[in-house]
Amino acid sequence: MSLLVVGSVAFDSIRTPHGQADEILGGAATYFSVAASWFTPVRMVAVVGEDFGERHLRVFSDRSIDTAGLERAAGKTFRWRGEYKGDMNEAHTLETHLNVFEQFAPKIPSAYLESEYVFLGNIDPVLQLHVRRQLPQARLVALDSMNYWIDGKHAELMKALAAVHVLVINESEARMLSGHSNLRRAAVAIQKMGPRILVVKRGEYGANLFTEGSIFSAPGLPLEEVQDPTGAGDTFAGGLMGHLAQTGDLSEANLRRAVIYGSVMASFAVEEFGLGRLLRLNPQMIGDRFQQFKNLAHFDA
Amino acid sequence: MSLLVVGSVAFDSIRTPHGQADEILGGAATYFSVAASWFTPVRMVAVVGEDFGERHLRVFSDRSIDTAGLERAAGKTFRWRGEYKGDMNEAHTLETHLNVFEQFAPKIPSAYLESEYVFLGNIDPVLQLHVRRQLPQARLVALDSMNYWIDGKHAELMKALAAVHVLVINESEARMLSGHSNLRRAAVAIQKMGPRILVVKRGEYGANLFTEGSIFSAPGLPLEEVQDPTGAGDTFAGGLMGHLAQTGDLSEANLRRAVIYGSVMASFAVEEFGLGRLLRLNPQMIGDRFQQFKNLAHFDA
Repeated sequence: MSLLVVGSVAFDSIRTPHGQADEILGGAATYFSVAASWFTPVRMVAVVGEDFGERHLRVFSDRSIDTAGLERAAGKTFRWRGEYKGDMNEAHTLETHLNVFEQFAPKIPSAYLESEYVFLGNIDPVLQLHVRRQLPQARLVALDSMNYWIDGKHAELMKALAAVHVLVINESEARMLSGHSNLRRAAVAIQKMGPRILVVKRGEYGANLFTEGSIFSAPGLPLEEVQDPTGAGDTFAGGLMGHLAQTGDLSEANLRRAVIYGSVMASFAVEEFGLGRLLRLNPQMIGDRFQQFKNLAHFDA
Repeated sequence: MSLLVVGSVAFDSIRTPHGQADEILGGAATYFSVAASWFTPVRMVAVVGEDFGERHLRVFSDRSIDTAGLERAAGKTFRWRGEYKGDMNEAHTLETHLNVFEQFAPKIPSAYLESEYVFLGNIDPVLQLHVRRQLPQARLVALDSMNYWIDGKHAELMKALAAVHVLVINESEARMLSGHSNLRRAAVAIQKMGPRILVVKRGEYGANLFTEGSIFSAPGLPLEEVQDPTGAGDTFAGGLMGHLAQTGDLSEANLRRAVIYGSVMASFAVEEFGLGRLLRLNPQMIGDRFQQFKNLAHFDA
């Protein structure tokens, strides 16, 4: 079924202990779309500048991602420069140039208005709510956010949260948003804000899914080498929402599988710089890695 | 089957955000024994001072823990004072008085020499190796260690590691011991040092089991309240080794169950200060919590 993502498209310059890359295609909507495209057709609403060329566009068209909602504005595309050190658990931002993203006002093409599955990437909660209100009949709306908005636009974020079904967020931000350091208490508090489904991303430790009355813990796959963690969280969300949109099944069992598919896609993403690994996948590889997660987590009573 | 533990018995004074306790019974061998006693008969080799009274001894005898190897020495029992702050991931040691533990020279009663399952708690690796050599026919010997020995007695620790089957260690110490920040590489390096089975404790994130050709990830159970993390690691080891000694089954499937039983016992331990929760258990509670871990980790393909 139709999956719509609203978020950033960027050029990233990244340095990690394993190497560096300059001005490679990135951004939340990019990672999300490419990951989700292995499961279901994806529609993207984002903005790029005049420097966004045919070869960049081809990355999306090669994955059959619908870019009718990809606006081209006068100016330059969003640029981010960051670095990861040591165990690479945290990105250190060196430079951010919002460029055309600064004035981003998401325009939803009319053909997108019937989208059933929606991911509101990490942007200003005012814009997230604006988009949400244009899609009143969406079956499942998920939202990502971050410390910047939790701190700076708290009231606006609360309104956006009250209007969505799923929050996908980092562990530290779940604690910050809820004011509880205990994750279980944090989850209860966040579910009261609106989203009945909470997915907490814990980096190399995996992810937790909190639904009504149930908690699921997805393991992190110990990888031999993590080259570049950039985009892992959005890739995770792409696998999660892609699987849900593909199956149309919102049962507890299928939500759990979706968290594993998100983990599968994120585990691929970090193996190479940028989108590299995500573009060279096939359904067999995705299925095999799902089975690796199954082997990793399985035990008998 | 018979399970022998060598380690510390102490009086702990603990402060956490949830309260404090003074001079309560603790120490690695204590937590290990009490946890393991829910699975199998336990024999303890440790040392206490003249201040160790009948009521302390009764904690062990009430759990049918064999204290023939608990030496009473002239002087005071080992004392530790520590504090946990914030999310309680780390103990801050305020005072350590080794007292009689400083001259601890483990004496294995002859009746213990046929012990099949052995846990060498976190003590000087010279002593660990000395004990190990007295138990040549043991079926499974596990060892715990810490940064202090990894740094200060590296060569001695290497000799002890070469002589055991299992290493149970914290994540940060696995990295330190191996020199690899990547956990999978760390595991390969540690397995080459001797122990073919490596169990990495990751606190609230659970634990990983590395065997030949297989990795298992046990989840951490999100608890509503963690009162006091003291002894959680030794309690984990007690549940793990207790289950293995009880079943005598060293298959991959049973090792995985053992890691879950370790996690089950640790999840109880942290719910109250000191041994409180571990002393008020019953087999039904342990079984129910095992099922909670199963529900937490389960997903279908």
